[in-house]
Amino acid sequence: MAQTRVVIIGGGFGGLTAARALRHADVILIDRTNHHVFQPLLYQVATAALSPSDIAWPLRTVFRAQQNVRVVMDDVVAIDRTARVVLLRDSAPIRFDTLVVAPGSQHAYFGHDDWEPFAPGLKTMRDAVQLRERMLLAFEQAEQRRAETGAQDRLTFVIVGGGPTGVEIAGALAEIGRKAMGPDYPHLRLDDLSILLVEAGPRILPGFDPTLSTKAVTALLRKGVTVRLNSPVQAIHAEGLTIAGEWIHSTNVIWAAGNKASPLLDTLQGPQDSNGRVKVQADLTLPDDPWIFVIGDAAHYQGDDGTPLPGIAPVAIQQGRYVAALINQHLPPAARSSFMYTDHGMLATIGRAQAVAQLGSIHATGLLAWVLWCLVHIFFLIGFRNRFRVMSEWVWYYLTFKPGARVLY
Amino acid sequence: MAQTRVVIIGGGFGGLTAARALRHADVILIDRTNHHVFQPLLYQVATAALSPSDIAWPLRTVFRAQQNVRVVMDDVVAIDRTARVVLLRDSAPIRFDTLVVAPGSQHAYFGHDDWEPFAPGLKTMRDAVQLRERMLLAFEQAEQRRAETGAQDRLTFVIVGGGPTGVEIAGALAEIGRKAMGPDYPHLRLDDLSILLVEAGPRILPGFDPTLSTKAVTALLRKGVTVRLNSPVQAIHAEGLTIAGEWIHSTNVIWAAGNKASPLLDTLQGPQDSNGRVKVQADLTLPDDPWIFVIGDAAHYQGDDGTPLPGIAPVAIQQGRYVAALINQHLPPAARSSFMYTDHGMLATIGRAQAVAQLGSIHATGLLAWVLWCLVHIFFLIGFRNRFRVMSEWVWYYLTFKPGARVLY
Repeated sequence: MAQTRVVIIGGGFGGLTAARALRHADVILIDRTNHHVFQPLLYQVATAALSPSDIAWPLRTVFRAQQNVRVVMDDVVAIDRTARVVLLRDSAPIRFDTLVVAPGSQHAYFGHDDWEPFAPGLKTMRDAVQLRERMLLAFEQAEQRRAETGAQDRLTFVIVGGGPTGVEIAGALAEIGRKAMGPDYPHLRLDDLSILLVEAGPRILPGFDPTLSTKAVTALLRKGVTVRLNSPVQAIHAEGLTIAGEWIHSTNVIWAAGNKASPLLDTLQGPQDSNGRVKVQADLTLPDDPWIFVIGDAAHYQGDDGTPLPGIAPVAIQQGRYVAALINQHLPPAARSSFMYTDHGMLATIGRAQAVAQLGSIHATGLLAWVLWCLVHIFFLIGFRNRFRVMSEWVWYYLTFKPGARVLY
Repeated sequence: MAQTRVVIIGGGFGGLTAARALRHADVILIDRTNHHVFQPLLYQVATAALSPSDIAWPLRTVFRAQQNVRVVMDDVVAIDRTARVVLLRDSAPIRFDTLVVAPGSQHAYFGHDDWEPFAPGLKTMRDAVQLRERMLLAFEQAEQRRAETGAQDRLTFVIVGGGPTGVEIAGALAEIGRKAMGPDYPHLRLDDLSILLVEAGPRILPGFDPTLSTKAVTALLRKGVTVRLNSPVQAIHAEGLTIAGEWIHSTNVIWAAGNKASPLLDTLQGPQDSNGRVKVQADLTLPDDPWIFVIGDAAHYQGDDGTPLPGIAPVAIQQGRYVAALINQHLPPAARSSFMYTDHGMLATIGRAQAVAQLGSIHATGLLAWVLWCLVHIFFLIGFRNRFRVMSEWVWYYLTFKPGARVLY
């Protein structure tokens, strides 16, 4: 019998973990880009603290030593369950015996896709590099206007969405704006910069314990971030946005509000939830298709408490490991034990020496939580080199307040 | 009397050196980008060995501590000598008492500007990032074709121009192609890769001693680069180029053949040479305009041997220092001694542990020249941080053959 062909769609945390754990099968890993991005640190590229190559790793290099994995850089346009092939945009279709679907998710604008050009999100390296460019240009232009007219034309950044990503972007922007950028733009005053974190719900970091949400707000305020709760966005244009009836002028709106699953999943013709995620079985497979797995934030998996698991890296990593184990052992459906998610807790950073951590019953804030956050993220970064580089970048930034990657090209 | 206003056009080696040396005057430094690029290492970004922020430095950060220098990021569209103002694309005109013109040069296609889209050059960070993207995509596509059809479709890179830049790009490409890329593209064979260095004249590195030109050819051949001498380019299309009557299929042509001065210089209405460079007086000024200086590769200055000085960093740096001294002392034309260029020699690297050096009568090749090259370049990199980073990048690359910046976005 020929060797099983396992095709993995997506080189994110889920797909990468699965591919690394599949030591025997003939594996083909397909990704739209040539690299794995360490998404939790993407906002640091967007705020010019890190360079793209600090938090991204070419997939070919990751699998250099793993002979059974072949990397294909292409776009998967459809999955044909009956013919057992995936269709690619640029190259020939690829046959599979087993399929691991981990395409991740994209931004959801709640039926207002026309907002996207004015409020880009932060999912890919390209997003991050473009955000960085907009931010740096905004500072250059504001400085120039001030130097010429002295006019009070505020530099207003609005971050929509009070989840971890929104909080991290807001905190990082405030820091770079007030500390690192300040001295470089002699004509700008501190109060020219205004950073707004807008949340539709009653509190930020809804996934965390309410006490931590409150602590996060206090920390953000101390950094000069204005937090607006219960403020759903009503409209976004090129010149600004309307929040809870109020018009705010801003050409720097960043979207961190909602995700929807990849449209590729529709071609699977399996059961999907309202966000387009595939409702998977206890073994992360499609109903009646025990060798097609869906993992990461493409999958809707009921946690113990009945709610779907969050779309975060630890879930994707554990699911990648789980499916790889099933595939390695060729386990028939009947012999499979359900996937179990071990929650190691949640972390969100608000800036230098400021974070909130929730590890089961243990809650931490401030420096302790931040150090914890650094260690966890450095630890999970792929490859010694990036760990070393990011660490040295942070030490440098910590000592000098000069962010390292502020080159416009 | 009001403080003299010195306007400097261009943040390259010449303009940057002048601005740093002008400690008293009210200085405005104008550049199209927000950073100074260490151009001699640009080819390493293009070949994915270094990241953009490793060899570029935000101008605002460079002048953070120098209160008398103001940085403006904009495009100078014209210089008005009579009104004593420079006109900018996006912001208000800027008045000057003294002007230092250091806009650098751009690529010359010898009347074949239609070649440019198919044979981009390497002058700016944007050029470098785009070349890197093309190179990495070319490898991805070749690997994909091979995997599917196994067809013999060679990966052909053609570098036009045998000067230091051409030699360095060819050497770096050969290295990355054969050593670093090899293991990552299992379907590609060594002989799928073909790198051609094309020179119209009888030898490469014409500025160097003939014996060193020969040694450079040998070193390039050893790396697998094909060197074609006396081979002027006749035509370049999207699919390839014609050299000395022969058609070569290649979608990766890189232009390193010729430069012409910035078109901005035409607005100065001074004497210009055939390349558009301004023929400057012994004190680097325009005739009858002792307070407008032209430096770097925008200037045509007769060396001792009657030929114009080469458009290299050391010339620009020494000229920047020279004009800054004249300005600091408010020296009237009569009291000025002519600019004197001190030639410290020339270096060109052919790859890891391979370079040629010519320091007066001393000629060096191989490892010695290469170590010399590393030291000189590291030493001249602006700012401790970049020195440290580039050094660590090189050590890493030397040990692992994994270039650090191979992320496509």
